[in-house]
Amino acid sequence: MPGQRSIGRPRSTEVDARLIDGALGLLRHSGPAAVTVEAVAARSGVAKTTIYRRYRDRDDLLRAAIGSAVTPPDQPPVEDIRGRLTWALGQVQTILSEVLGRGGIAALLDDREPTFTTLVRDLLTPYTTALAGLIEHDTAAGRLRSDLDADAAVSLMLGTYLGELLRHGTVGADWIPDASTCSGTP
Amino acid sequence: MPGQRSIGRPRSTEVDARLIDGALGLLRHSGPAAVTVEAVAARSGVAKTTIYRRYRDRDDLLRAAIGSAVTPPDQPPVEDIRGRLTWALGQVQTILSEVLGRGGIAALLDDREPTFTTLVRDLLTPYTTALAGLIEHDTAAGRLRSDLDADAAVSLMLGTYLGELLRHGTVGADWIPDASTCSGTP
Repeated sequence: MPGQRSIGRPRSTEVDARLIDGALGLLRHSGPAAVTVEAVAARSGVAKTTIYRRYRDRDDLLRAAIGSAVTPPDQPPVEDIRGRLTWALGQVQTILSEVLGRGGIAALLDDREPTFTTLVRDLLTPYTTALAGLIEHDTAAGRLRSDLDADAAVSLMLGTYLGELLRHGTVGADWIPDASTCSGTP
Repeated sequence: MPGQRSIGRPRSTEVDARLIDGALGLLRHSGPAAVTVEAVAARSGVAKTTIYRRYRDRDDLLRAAIGSAVTPPDQPPVEDIRGRLTWALGQVQTILSEVLGRGGIAALLDDREPTFTTLVRDLLTPYTTALAGLIEHDTAAGRLRSDLDADAAVSLMLGTYLGELLRHGTVGADWIPDASTCSGTP
């Protein structure tokens, strides 16, 4: 019945969503070392045997969790250039605050777990390449300065968030300026 | 005699320099948890009793080490605006790569040792405030766009380094563009 919560064995997609939530919650808060199958089972309320039926090991689960949230952008949902940049900054904010969090960012920066670093870079690279491609497209179309270095612009967008975090420990809600000009927002 | 190395008891300033080098080396490589009086003694070859005669405790030593390297800028050494920005990026690079290093940056970002976070922010704030003041001065003088947010520009300068580090694990020698235009460089 619509609107009614099923009781009993949770549906497969619901289990996956709970596992992904659990893994990312641990990662954001405490870094990759905290993401063990045991800890994800405890946090999500899903049995370890169920986890192992779905994921080969903890790295496989972590890859699925991060990968589900970091899918390379196809097209920005807005037409005007200011709206596009606002959208891109929103994407960066999602990856840094809702996927990696401070725990994942710190681990990536000090490379404390090389398999984690590789895993994230493998997922991040198609993403940042796609973002740079969108910027190049706008540069070629004359919507951005012709001498703009698209790859450096991507680092800048990631970096302005990181700079705020380094200086203040938090990133304010006003980090993305003029979100109201994002004409394509529903 | 000039050019001759003194043998025996090292001079006071030499001892301080060795202690600062030792503390920052440990910080950069392994984060603040690695900076203990024992580890600094071992790394610098200075006896623990000598360290305790100079510094109250490990936090005092760490504060002195970081503070010696992070002194708020008085005036940029160059006149033209491109040279000033290049100089400011060089300052940021020094703080992030030679003082904090990946170990210190990661610890700051995940706030793993709150006393360290406070210590660094206390030293960093006068610095970033001074840097923002220089940018405001140039904005007021018409050398930079009048609508430039000086505080956001400081986060951007720190952040572009961090963005590169997050994406690639290293920051290339070409991170600061057009250093040759820095006309004030000797």
